[in-house]
Amino acid sequence: MSFTITHKDKHTKARIGILKTKSGDIETPFFMPVATKATAKYINSKKLQEITPAIISNAFLLSLRPGVEIIRRFKGIKKFMNYKGITFTDSGGFQMYSDYLYITSNEKGVYFRNPISGEKIFMTSGENMKLQQDINADVAMCLDSMPIYKNSKEEIKKAVELTINWAEKCKKEHDRLQENIMKNKKQLLFCISQGGIYKDLREYCIKELAKLNFDGYAIGGIALPEALYGKEMEKAKKLEQQSIKIHKKFSPENKPCYLMGEGNPIWLLEAIALGVDCFDSRYPTQSARRGTIFTKNGKIKILNKKYEYDKTPIDKKCDCFTCKNYSRTYVRFLLRENEPVGKELASYHNLYFMKWLIEEAKKHIKKNTFIEFLEKMKKTYK
Amino acid sequence: MSFTITHKDKHTKARIGILKTKSGDIETPFFMPVATKATAKYINSKKLQEITPAIISNAFLLSLRPGVEIIRRFKGIKKFMNYKGITFTDSGGFQMYSDYLYITSNEKGVYFRNPISGEKIFMTSGENMKLQQDINADVAMCLDSMPIYKNSKEEIKKAVELTINWAEKCKKEHDRLQENIMKNKKQLLFCISQGGIYKDLREYCIKELAKLNFDGYAIGGIALPEALYGKEMEKAKKLEQQSIKIHKKFSPENKPCYLMGEGNPIWLLEAIALGVDCFDSRYPTQSARRGTIFTKNGKIKILNKKYEYDKTPIDKKCDCFTCKNYSRTYVRFLLRENEPVGKELASYHNLYFMKWLIEEAKKHIKKNTFIEFLEKMKKTYK
Repeated sequence: MSFTITHKDKHTKARIGILKTKSGDIETPFFMPVATKATAKYINSKKLQEITPAIISNAFLLSLRPGVEIIRRFKGIKKFMNYKGITFTDSGGFQMYSDYLYITSNEKGVYFRNPISGEKIFMTSGENMKLQQDINADVAMCLDSMPIYKNSKEEIKKAVELTINWAEKCKKEHDRLQENIMKNKKQLLFCISQGGIYKDLREYCIKELAKLNFDGYAIGGIALPEALYGKEMEKAKKLEQQSIKIHKKFSPENKPCYLMGEGNPIWLLEAIALGVDCFDSRYPTQSARRGTIFTKNGKIKILNKKYEYDKTPIDKKCDCFTCKNYSRTYVRFLLRENEPVGKELASYHNLYFMKWLIEEAKKHIKKNTFIEFLEKMKKTYK
Repeated sequence: MSFTITHKDKHTKARIGILKTKSGDIETPFFMPVATKATAKYINSKKLQEITPAIISNAFLLSLRPGVEIIRRFKGIKKFMNYKGITFTDSGGFQMYSDYLYITSNEKGVYFRNPISGEKIFMTSGENMKLQQDINADVAMCLDSMPIYKNSKEEIKKAVELTINWAEKCKKEHDRLQENIMKNKKQLLFCISQGGIYKDLREYCIKELAKLNFDGYAIGGIALPEALYGKEMEKAKKLEQQSIKIHKKFSPENKPCYLMGEGNPIWLLEAIALGVDCFDSRYPTQSARRGTIFTKNGKIKILNKKYEYDKTPIDKKCDCFTCKNYSRTYVRFLLRENEPVGKELASYHNLYFMKWLIEEAKKHIKKNTFIEFLEKMKKTYK
């Protein structure tokens, strides 16, 4: 068993667990900043290590550049980028399905354009597993068919069928590739459920995936900022929570549940309350670069004129590198000037905040006071 | 006396000294990375502190944004950017004289366009002193008239006259502004000699400046990559050395000599051999961002295909953060991808190299073996 639940909150479905990986154990829940191309933006891997136990990279993009051969020579992404935490790779299905790359797909795989050369590529689910094995993260993700949000229910149904079909093929190929590897050195494989906002499709998809014995069950196509309901926040949150509930109801309880793309502090806590164990998002770092800073007293827009003469730290209650050393005035000035150091300082702080948020959440789950913490944070972030 | 020479090399004019500033003493020679807008590119001020004892910012650009009022509220640039080393500010004359901003100048000051708003500005030498006092670096630089390189000798002569005229005014105004400040808390003031490539103008300029009792004597308008002789390297070096010799001959021996804009490792060492004490340049960081890396075995172009599979550090003999943690392959990949972390890692290394270079130079000056070190480095960097 790669996952053990060590504590269940008495009042919500929140839980603490231990996920065993070939690089060591990691306590859930956890949040992963994105390191798409084997680096985060503006934060080097040693700094990342200080503020996150895990990161996620993109197998497809890395296969284009620098190419898996280079990463293989380093025995995998960890040594390539010198990050000592836990690593995930996403298949890159999301990128292949982007409007400007996607051509078509069938049971064998996806046709899409190479974003660099423009040439047509066909990638099978099995080839994707091989890429991810070569990149050698601790956890690989199945290739999923990412329904483009504006598609009809009929088209999303097709995507769900493909997702299930590929998940079976990924599992088989991954098992074969990992066959001769010692048990504690094996890469884990998570599947991804799809179904858009359609309850019946979500239910169908996760029920089928649950029949296969994956190491983890991710919820795809729902929490991304690009998704259907970007603007209508409350509606979007309800739909997200509905999807999580269906996913949780029909996925194995004793497997980690990963909500892909969620980095909004409150939505993340609410997902934890529903039993989600794992998250990733570019939102904290991207927001930081654009001047949206997470603090223990809520979000602030640091570019706002009112911070021009504010000599206090970004967050008075924070003891991160940025808050210990720099003022709001200085960070604001650097961001306004588009200075890389401003982006670094703001990104570091927001990731440190995410670490704090998850640590607080875990403390409260252990004390069965998670619901109070969630309510407090919801008020703060209203 | 703010400057004390502690050692003179037996075979060259190289020397070791101590420059006393209100923030503490600094041993010469030293090299300053540029922190034009109160930050270096991609290197935060705490990281800068690890790799350089001094930095130089631009008073004029800072006066536009964030404005001196903000910096004044922090009691100066050191606290504003939280850098604990020695700080210089340049007047910004160089920027005001750039092709696209400069309008005209006279004995009172410079007419130029605000690069942000486009409006006409008139700045007097005295106003510039006040800006620099408010920004409160340890060392201020006189406003100089920066001859545009394509100008005629006649025009450069005018620039020299203005430079001398303003230097007198700067000195007077600076003395007045600093009048009531305790001796060990006073800001130092360096003047800048001009004269382009014309020996007689250089000589005239520095002779006049030497009559005023400045804390240091800088050589301007000569080592900048934008200057006249950018391409013809050998000729350029000879002209630079000729200017240094004239400057040194007619400037006070017991005052620090600052060659502005020099960051080429070998040219810098050759300038040290002629008695220069202080340097600044954006060259090491700018080169790094573009893939030119300084190593103890010479420059390498890290973007070159031959480093694609090179798992060794940038410089095997270097123990900087970058070299201890990352491979040539990884740094190359990040730079090729235009990733900010690549620029950070390369910049950090090149600045660390400059620190090493100066430290080695000082060791050799103290042992009277500087000339051997210079010859060795010249061969390495051929």
